[in-house]
Amino acid sequence: MKTWKTLSRKTLLQHSKYLTVESHTLELPDGRIIEDWAWLVMPDYVNVVAVTGDGRFLVFRQTKYCLEGTSLAPVGGYLEPGEDPLAAARRELREETGYAAPDWTSLGQFHVDANRGAGQGHFFLAPGPVWAGQVASDDLEEQELLLLTRAEVEVGLLNHEFKTMPWAFAISLALLRLQSAG
Amino acid sequence: MKTWKTLSRKTLLQHSKYLTVESHTLELPDGRIIEDWAWLVMPDYVNVVAVTGDGRFLVFRQTKYCLEGTSLAPVGGYLEPGEDPLAAARRELREETGYAAPDWTSLGQFHVDANRGAGQGHFFLAPGPVWAGQVASDDLEEQELLLLTRAEVEVGLLNHEFKTMPWAFAISLALLRLQSAG
Repeated sequence: MKTWKTLSRKTLLQHSKYLTVESHTLELPDGRIIEDWAWLVMPDYVNVVAVTGDGRFLVFRQTKYCLEGTSLAPVGGYLEPGEDPLAAARRELREETGYAAPDWTSLGQFHVDANRGAGQGHFFLAPGPVWAGQVASDDLEEQELLLLTRAEVEVGLLNHEFKTMPWAFAISLALLRLQSAG
Repeated sequence: MKTWKTLSRKTLLQHSKYLTVESHTLELPDGRIIEDWAWLVMPDYVNVVAVTGDGRFLVFRQTKYCLEGTSLAPVGGYLEPGEDPLAAARRELREETGYAAPDWTSLGQFHVDANRGAGQGHFFLAPGPVWAGQVASDDLEEQELLLLTRAEVEVGLLNHEFKTMPWAFAISLALLRLQSAG
């Protein structure tokens, strides 16, 4: 199978470091030309599922602009420009929870929007985090750290208490990975 | 916990039915005002994990603009304006595969971007689909329908063969739901 070819691109809107909108001209494998295909340039982000030695998941109850009320959420945040995803994951875990983890497993990186880009999410499992010092989050949202059992996390996932796609996906991947590890 | 309040919104870019960019003025719970918060208005979409009576997952191998090479992917597509998510799921399954399913289970709906909106994904499990007639897809991408075993799907997921977030998330949710159903 052949992929689509980008013939040209121009910027339609340069909003901020969080969003640039481009217009692409594409060529399909059969030679058809598509004009003005919208493409979103947005920063990559990480989500981290940290699980303590006694099986507690570090999870927030928090607000977010897109949500009514609160949601459960794993640790997460945007990569700084040029930052390695694993470095961002370590930084966000430390800043948001005060915990540091010795071992890290990548759960993969995934395109947010198959058609329009919008960056990628990088997901990590961090077993055995330990308290390492003060929380230093600069997040604008109110949030409360919970230590949930695996059963509580599973019930929360199936009951739709993780309300955004990357959050629920991070939890899903972590649960499947923990299962496959036995 | 208090959520953020939208004080005003204006349109920055009206691109197409697939994308409008807005600028919002927000008020945080502590009274701080945030100016020019980017917000994406994009259509909701569905992804459908259809599993035949003999345990075969209807999955495509296909291209997508955001990807190099091919990816495994479940059935999916955008909602038409005003369309019910379940109706869209039934329509996409029929159009893309030629199969129809008698029973449908919602796997939930999730915001694509916690900060910027970008629509919601609606996920469904469709057990027992049967061949119902001709494929009538108008998708631009090349795609090939596969009937994979659950083990093949699980291996594919963990090996990152479902390369976009909604596709891999739909598969993850379906696997977890099938497990919890025993």
